[in-house]
Amino acid sequence: MISQDDFESTKKKLASFKGVKGVIVTSSEGLPISSTIEMEKTEKVAALITSLVKKTAAVVEALGEESFNFLILDTQKGSNIMVAPEEEQILIVLKDSDPKIQKV
Amino acid sequence: MISQDDFESTKKKLASFKGVKGVIVTSSEGLPISSTIEMEKTEKVAALITSLVKKTAAVVEALGEESFNFLILDTQKGSNIMVAPEEEQILIVLKDSDPKIQKV
Repeated sequence: MISQDDFESTKKKLASFKGVKGVIVTSSEGLPISSTIEMEKTEKVAALITSLVKKTAAVVEALGEESFNFLILDTQKGSNIMVAPEEEQILIVLKDSDPKIQKV
Repeated sequence: MISQDDFESTKKKLASFKGVKGVIVTSSEGLPISSTIEMEKTEKVAALITSLVKKTAAVVEALGEESFNFLILDTQKGSNIMVAPEEEQILIVLKDSDPKIQKV
């Protein structure tokens, strides 16, 4: 868990990183709070990723791992979707796949 | 996508890596095919992760990203759960969190 200030500054820092296509912050209900990309895509990503966060949280809890700090998705089309759920917000970062991460 | 031979050799290689607690291969329906950990936990992990894979695949497709190559989950209790879905199988690796990955 990180503080609200850290959360905001992390968001700004992330948006400036190479390969980052968008940074979205949503409420834990999937309502966008702030975003660096267009509204329509923001709403779609926010809604879909929030539903994925809920499912992931349920699976992680059922596995006895309490909760999760982050989730990274590497897609067929060469995107990384990174998701960090906080107490009342969800941070979503969309970026190009990093070859170093793909090799893990 | 990788071949069946690559899949099996990757599984063995992964199991030998530092911090790796278990490697499980399941059918895409969640039935365990092979595992390096005890049966009871294998069945639980296989069933839960398979349901998460289905949800993730649906979200990734809805986002227009076709499918996903892998999913990494970093849990509160210090575990990494790495999941790679293949055509008919799912590879699941359970390991201790890697501080280098946490810093991403």
